Amino acid sequence: MALPAPLRGVIPPVCTPLDPHGEVDTASLARLVTHLLDGGVHGLFALGSTSEVAYLTDAQRATALETVVKTADGRVPVLAGVIDTTTPRVLDHAAAAAALGADALVATAPFYTRTHPREIAAHFRRLRAEAGLPVFAYDIPMAVHGKLPLSLVHELAEDGTLAGLKDSSGDEGALRRLLVGLGGRTARGRGPAPAFSVLTGSELTVDAALLAGADGVVPGLGNVDPAGYVRLYEAARAGDWAGAAAEQERLVGLFSMTGIGPEDEMGRSSAALGSFKAALWLLGVIGHQATAFPQIPLGEEAVSDVGRRLTAAGLPPVRRARTGDAR
Amino acid sequence: MALPAPLRGVIPPVCTPLDPHGEVDTASLARLVTHLLDGGVHGLFALGSTSEVAYLTDAQRATALETVVKTADGRVPVLAGVIDTTTPRVLDHAAAAAALGADALVATAPFYTRTHPREIAAHFRRLRAEAGLPVFAYDIPMAVHGKLPLSLVHELAEDGTLAGLKDSSGDEGALRRLLVGLGGRTARGRGPAPAFSVLTGSELTVDAALLAGADGVVPGLGNVDPAGYVRLYEAARAGDWAGAAAEQERLVGLFSMTGIGPEDEMGRSSAALGSFKAALWLLGVIGHQATAFPQIPLGEEAVSDVGRRLTAAGLPPVRRARTGDAR
Amino acid sequence: MALPAPLRGVIPPVCTPLDPHGEVDTASLARLVTHLLDGGVHGLFALGSTSEVAYLTDAQRATALETVVKTADGRVPVLAGVIDTTTPRVLDHAAAAAALGADALVATAPFYTRTHPREIAAHFRRLRAEAGLPVFAYDIPMAVHGKLPLSLVHELAEDGTLAGLKDSSGDEGALRRLLVGLGGRTARGRGPAPAFSVLTGSELTVDAALLAGADGVVPGLGNVDPAGYVRLYEAARAGDWAGAAAEQERLVGLFSMTGIGPEDEMGRSSAALGSFKAALWLLGVIGHQATAFPQIPLGEEAVSDVGRRLTAAGLPPVRRARTGDAR
Amino acid sequence: MALPAPLRGVIPPVCTPLDPHGEVDTASLARLVTHLLDGGVHGLFALGSTSEVAYLTDAQRATALETVVKTADGRVPVLAGVIDTTTPRVLDHAAAAAALGADALVATAPFYTRTHPREIAAHFRRLRAEAGLPVFAYDIPMAVHGKLPLSLVHELAEDGTLAGLKDSSGDEGALRRLLVGLGGRTARGRGPAPAFSVLTGSELTVDAALLAGADGVVPGLGNVDPAGYVRLYEAARAGDWAGAAAEQERLVGLFSMTGIGPEDEMGRSSAALGSFKAALWLLGVIGHQATAFPQIPLGEEAVSDVGRRLTAAGLPPVRRARTGDAR
Repeated sequence: MALPAPLRGVIPPVCTPLDPHGEVDTASLARLVTHLLDGGVHGLFALGSTSEVAYLTDAQRATALETVVKTADGRVPVLAGVIDTTTPRVLDHAAAAAALGADALVATAPFYTRTHPREIAAHFRRLRAEAGLPVFAYDIPMAVHGKLPLSLVHELAEDGTLAGLKDSSGDEGALRRLLVGLGGRTARGRGPAPAFSVLTGSELTVDAALLAGADGVVPGLGNVDPAGYVRLYEAARAGDWAGAAAEQERLVGLFSMTGIGPEDEMGRSSAALGSFKAALWLLGVIGHQATAFPQIPLGEEAVSDVGRRLTAAGLPPVRRARTGDAR
Repeated sequence: MALPAPLRGVIPPVCTPLDPHGEVDTASLARLVTHLLDGGVHGLFALGSTSEVAYLTDAQRATALETVVKTADGRVPVLAGVIDTTTPRVLDHAAAAAALGADALVATAPFYTRTHPREIAAHFRRLRAEAGLPVFAYDIPMAVHGKLPLSLVHELAEDGTLAGLKDSSGDEGALRRLLVGLGGRTARGRGPAPAFSVLTGSELTVDAALLAGADGVVPGLGNVDPAGYVRLYEAARAGDWAGAAAEQERLVGLFSMTGIGPEDEMGRSSAALGSFKAALWLLGVIGHQATAFPQIPLGEEAVSDVGRRLTAAGLPPVRRARTGDAR
Repeated sequence: MALPAPLRGVIPPVCTPLDPHGEVDTASLARLVTHLLDGGVHGLFALGSTSEVAYLTDAQRATALETVVKTADGRVPVLAGVIDTTTPRVLDHAAAAAALGADALVATAPFYTRTHPREIAAHFRRLRAEAGLPVFAYDIPMAVHGKLPLSLVHELAEDGTLAGLKDSSGDEGALRRLLVGLGGRTARGRGPAPAFSVLTGSELTVDAALLAGADGVVPGLGNVDPAGYVRLYEAARAGDWAGAAAEQERLVGLFSMTGIGPEDEMGRSSAALGSFKAALWLLGVIGHQATAFPQIPLGEEAVSDVGRRLTAAGLPPVRRARTGDAR
Repeated sequence: MALPAPLRGVIPPVCTPLDPHGEVDTASLARLVTHLLDGGVHGLFALGSTSEVAYLTDAQRATALETVVKTADGRVPVLAGVIDTTTPRVLDHAAAAAALGADALVATAPFYTRTHPREIAAHFRRLRAEAGLPVFAYDIPMAVHGKLPLSLVHELAEDGTLAGLKDSSGDEGALRRLLVGLGGRTARGRGPAPAFSVLTGSELTVDAALLAGADGVVPGLGNVDPAGYVRLYEAARAGDWAGAAAEQERLVGLFSMTGIGPEDEMGRSSAALGSFKAALWLLGVIGHQATAFPQIPLGEEAVSDVGRRLTAAGLPPVRRARTGDAR
């Protein structure tokens, strides 16, 4: 389907449910996509960091993307992550994603290597030229270990290389400067890149990003509570900032689940992704809580804690944690 | 004077004007304080990073603080930075600040050393016990190279060690989690630390911080345009979020002055502090643009550029950049 | 072939020559392998960082490894990098490398993700269990953004998970602590992991690493001057430390070529890899200087400068830089 | 006394013994200096990081330096750290150190602030111009959070601004490039800065640094075993590299004491400095083990462990850890 320009709204990075053997659980993934569409989301981002893209083999990436595209069935656009170290490898993923029906691509700057801004610009330009699909830049310094320079994003927005930005940098000051440079919240549509979409990946400050003029949000927590993020987005669109902030506060409370896994036992990826999957399992959306190897699964007590936080946020579980359920 | 609890509003970190010999220009500093009070600010933060505290000798720190206290004359509270590497040295500064009439202290975690969170807690507790004044924690990872752990701030807020936090971390997600933990924007006063003041030092996202429930802001750019930040604060207090955001956008535009100094010629401290001082000189508030050694002064062209940005933001200069004026 | 245990000597990370279309130039690669074998190297490391592994598609990785294995023809062992973000993707590369005849694998810790030491241990253990080949850990914080904990390396050395370590961390103090923990330079063979091979990737301090008891070196610059590194290694083995240091100093001088590419024009990967390829082209070993996209090629003047440094180090070029040769 | 040019040998950073009230224990400090001189050291570095300079008030710094100078009594040169955030504050310390009889100064680049290399150069040049004493640059990125650029050190060595470098960066590759640039191990005295002294602060790789042509070492562990470092230095001077390496290995074993303090209970400064002081107390050199506030003291079990490592390294304690001794 044609991508709206700019793309707006709530576009969750879709979790990739796995079975106990570590393979993509396509039935669960289809149910998750339906859960998201039922929540009113405006797009789907497959193969993002929250989708555990870095843990999926090429074959698994294809299975996951295919399932999302088929289940979405053209009702909302599907963005596909093409996450790899450098341009040649990203181009391979881009060709695969295009063949599988993705509506747009999401790419980071090169990582593992040490890359100059001029090289990053060449990377995005070549991807745009060869992929035949709109390209979103994915600014995620936690993973890539460098932030996209503001001037580079402006340049690639204004010359049409990029259809948008997914900003997971957590640097809200830089995001504000970008938005003001694009015309500010009132003049965005008349600014230098009227079709450029600015999406925040910072799920705890969505009201703030929308107040600043962002077009939408890519919330990992939106897997668990898509309707909550849609309510937040709609309140903001209506100018009800107090309502947006109240909804955001409820979601901040729910987000505390990502810190439940003990820091001395597991990585922060394991803890966050494990809590999302535990929540989706407790809510009956997916069939297994398994995260990809070598992530360490949440223990039973942590899963129970996730359940309590779901209840506190108004999302009572339909399953209960039991010994042996954690994986 | 007794410090309001919680402290609220606009509390600029007061620049320290210097004369051509690098000494504190007390006449200019007094005029700057008057300029800030005329702008309607609710407090003054002397000897902060924007005050070039790291460049001032102990004697110069005393001169600057004394001038601010005298000029404020009890009309608003004066917070004094006690910035040094560890507790014993900070305690010396605290005694000096108390003797000079500061109403509260602002201290970072230890730096230069490698310090454990338990040691940071002991640091703030001893400062609180010995200084006889309310203590604000200053979270500034760019300078200290570590972020205050959220759990530590909560602990020291709830047990009364800290009167507040100045958050210059730029981590708005963490700030939101802190605020929600303290009760959220509606229940702050009934939360676990009702007198604890949360101030953002991120001058580009003040509307967002206030929407999230922060009590106020410590804006470096507030030296140049105190009235602008007061308008922004008042709009937010009145629930006029569109108005607050519009004012914020104007200030983001003005803030671009901090990037005028060329990156290959000077450090980012020099460029930012140099632009604030150039603006204050162009506006006729202070007598010299000099920044402290070894910072590199802005060139004449950069100063002219500052002037143009002042004009664009509705603050037309009363002086004009000339050869030789830059320092 | 069976891998010596421990593996010792000079094992260069083999550059991957590319043609002007960015495809692997197998004829040049075969000549390069012959050049290295003629220089007396004790092993070959294909698909390492210096091989531009992060820029090669899976098909190109296979072509490069196949060429190295065929040309080596069992004369020295071939180690193959299996560089990717996490275990599932690394396992795919491992299966490919085993099928192509690699004698051992070289893997980093997971990257892009945030990974706990327990997860890193599980990563290496599973790779060892499934790959059917000896595994070397590759400690390269510049790329992976985390250093392998010393205690983890010890544990995986002693339990036989790892056949060795390629240490490109540049942390010589940690390397020394590792070596002393393994028995020290005199008691290595009687220490807790007698077959464990410690290889330094720090090509400027090889004499020091060998004095400390390291088993060998994986020098990127060894592509250009394999015989020099072999002489250095042999001098050290013979206890001629003054001779080893003199050879090292000559190689430090030659290494300066990696800094020729201007910092404001290209990334440090481009500059270093570009200089190695320029040198190999000037020496007549490979047919093209091209580095992988999106790296920026060295200009003609830089290539001439590489030539001058080759001459200064006693390796006179057989080609001369001309306009248009740089890529 | 006139400083040798270049300064050579073992120059320990002298610990600052404290009494239970946190004040400088001058009797213990004098005994420590005697212990170091008896060990054969070639100079003393007072008020360095190992001296807990960042924890000492100005008055305590003066007391400590005065005690070191008086006890040394001209037998070896005394270098004094002038550690503070920026030039104006460093100049105050420099004046104090000169008045107290220091023979040379040791200064870092500015910290807390963001400083450009041109500003760092101005910093050292002004210090040299105003202090009237030779100046050593102290490269300690762990504390200052930036590494001195190699080209800057070369420039300031060649123009005579700096008398030497104390390199605590742990970047042995950069150290090697510096030394080769200064003429290499054989031609140092005929190189571009013949009087420039290169001292390593990396106490685990001293043999390597001396093999590379360094002039000496500033070892924190040299407080505990000065004679060991002197033996290592003398072996290296005599070309007995196997002997130097064996001595280094023994010292690496002893250095393991710095990791005894548990990571989840104390900072790495506390653990390292606490172990040095525990060792000096166990050896009967100093009267108390206290480290400066807010560092956390080692527990009794850790102190016992320090004792065991002393014994293992051939330095049997004369005291035994008892309950209550730890502080």
